[in-house]
Amino acid sequence: MKVQGRETRAVWWTDEGVRFIDQRLLPGRFEIGIARTVEEVAAAIETMAVRGAPLIGVFAAYGLALAARAHAEVGAAEARLYRTRPTAVNLRRGLDAVCAAAPDPGRMLAAARAFDETEVAAAEAIGVHGAALIGRGARILTHCNAGWLAVQDWGTALAPVYRAQRAGLEPFVWVSETRPRLQGARLTTWELRGEGVAHTLIVDSVAAHLIQRGQVDLVLTGADRIAANGDTANKIGTYARALAAHAHVIPFYVAAPLSTIDRATASGDGIPIEERSPDEVLTVEGVDDSGATVRVRVATDGTAALNPAFDVTPHALITGLITEVGIVPATTAGIAGAFERAGLSAARRMK
Amino acid sequence: MKVQGRETRAVWWTDEGVRFIDQRLLPGRFEIGIARTVEEVAAAIETMAVRGAPLIGVFAAYGLALAARAHAEVGAAEARLYRTRPTAVNLRRGLDAVCAAAPDPGRMLAAARAFDETEVAAAEAIGVHGAALIGRGARILTHCNAGWLAVQDWGTALAPVYRAQRAGLEPFVWVSETRPRLQGARLTTWELRGEGVAHTLIVDSVAAHLIQRGQVDLVLTGADRIAANGDTANKIGTYARALAAHAHVIPFYVAAPLSTIDRATASGDGIPIEERSPDEVLTVEGVDDSGATVRVRVATDGTAALNPAFDVTPHALITGLITEVGIVPATTAGIAGAFERAGLSAARRMK
Repeated sequence: MKVQGRETRAVWWTDEGVRFIDQRLLPGRFEIGIARTVEEVAAAIETMAVRGAPLIGVFAAYGLALAARAHAEVGAAEARLYRTRPTAVNLRRGLDAVCAAAPDPGRMLAAARAFDETEVAAAEAIGVHGAALIGRGARILTHCNAGWLAVQDWGTALAPVYRAQRAGLEPFVWVSETRPRLQGARLTTWELRGEGVAHTLIVDSVAAHLIQRGQVDLVLTGADRIAANGDTANKIGTYARALAAHAHVIPFYVAAPLSTIDRATASGDGIPIEERSPDEVLTVEGVDDSGATVRVRVATDGTAALNPAFDVTPHALITGLITEVGIVPATTAGIAGAFERAGLSAARRMK
Repeated sequence: MKVQGRETRAVWWTDEGVRFIDQRLLPGRFEIGIARTVEEVAAAIETMAVRGAPLIGVFAAYGLALAARAHAEVGAAEARLYRTRPTAVNLRRGLDAVCAAAPDPGRMLAAARAFDETEVAAAEAIGVHGAALIGRGARILTHCNAGWLAVQDWGTALAPVYRAQRAGLEPFVWVSETRPRLQGARLTTWELRGEGVAHTLIVDSVAAHLIQRGQVDLVLTGADRIAANGDTANKIGTYARALAAHAHVIPFYVAAPLSTIDRATASGDGIPIEERSPDEVLTVEGVDDSGATVRVRVATDGTAALNPAFDVTPHALITGLITEVGIVPATTAGIAGAFERAGLSAARRMK
């Protein structure tokens, strides 16, 4: 995708280190960060300078290549990177892809690059398959950010939207702000503006109301981990949207590459849900009148807060999974079929 | 309720004007405002210095008494006050109660006082009836603020909680922050802290997840208007909580005085939904490190936002209505029975 006229990915390898768009600073400032060590890669993931399940898989893969180049202990580096965030299974995929090429640093970097390109191709294919669901002027509700900042070059949930926009179908997107980190308000609006897609921001509580009032044709979200039976962990708030879509018989699709599917986990019950700092709930970061970034407290001093970052949507509420091999049912058989279609070699790689 | 050891209501009459706790400043600052004219009363409602459906009914009633005392044109004053917020039917009730005593200023003030005391008694009775639903250590999910800041002296949804707390039942409350105005984060946490009730703050998207995970025994909310068939308009986000409670067979109760029931509106389809300024979505107000109140922008510049303040929960999702005459079904017959029980005189007053 282009920023200020230049083709840009959310993360990319350079000889100095892994460069990334610092997503903590958007939409106020567009700045490129660099991670020169495994620790810097891990910190960028933990602080969410780099976020989005598929993206952190690619970023961690490059992080492991960094470790190899520095002749660091690959096992320790892999363990450090894997610890950063528990829910996104893509982290495991990216690390596995590079570990398979150990110990040669050159081969490990090549493996990271190949993993990156596979993810780009998957996102592009998701866009092609998903665009078939989007009619002229369709009103799409999304949540969090599942665009090219979260998934190299195209995104997952937003890839079909971008494809439809380029086809002249003029899609419209309802963007839910996505407390506590406000990825919808900060990142999705920024992406959609850049791509010229019409959109309107709402607070998270408005989603069910819009569905009830017939203002939504299609719900499209990404995923952080999909279990073998199709149960899907995604940003907290996704489950409530799925319930509302189900109650009003609106299609609810999850867009994700096969690398997000964890066939070793039988159902959503087995997916670990990350709990983040209560401070994210007790405070909000934004830009004041002078343009400075300020964090403000919004609750009574001394208030306790709980901050689960994801929830699980049962597969029965999901109309289908939009993957790089096509749209498949969110069921054990549907997922098995997708891997079969992806071919034996891909199935081995993703295992 | 007591603040800093002194009995305080959210609004009260004095010879200088109508005094009120300025709810825009909480929890950071506890300040008493005064409205000396109808215009100041109207402005305090519009800016939400005074908010909560039953409370603005009482406040508007005193506002009309102010107009009468100043020999202002009562019809114009009534029209101005009625225009302030469209969804809460209590506004209509308070104004009607005082208009019925026009044109004598003394009688109109007495009518406003009587309306106030009726609402206090209703809230207290709601607490008594609702407390029967709260077992020892029950985990209650509420939304927005329906405590004594919203409903004179006791609240609606929180009245049963306060009653249970005083009975030693140690209830626990999940407080959803309630974007965009953050009444949960700012006001409900402040109230619960003052009353010593255990509670934890969550962002709005977490509610369905907690219900799914078996962390909620009971959902309790207030109401801004209840139609004749039991459909209930309440703070945006209430409907999504009702859907989640229904999916997991958790009781979902609406607590409201009869003054919130609008028997002239057949169903939720007829309830007007207030749309407030997009700025409430695009910005967040909080307190910075120096203790100053700061408003920060959270979205990309130029983003459009939609800001409906309420949604409608269909009566079929409501386990029951907790009113001052007892817990009744959220149905036409249940509501008719409640008015019958309240007695002919009350039914005439509320009509």
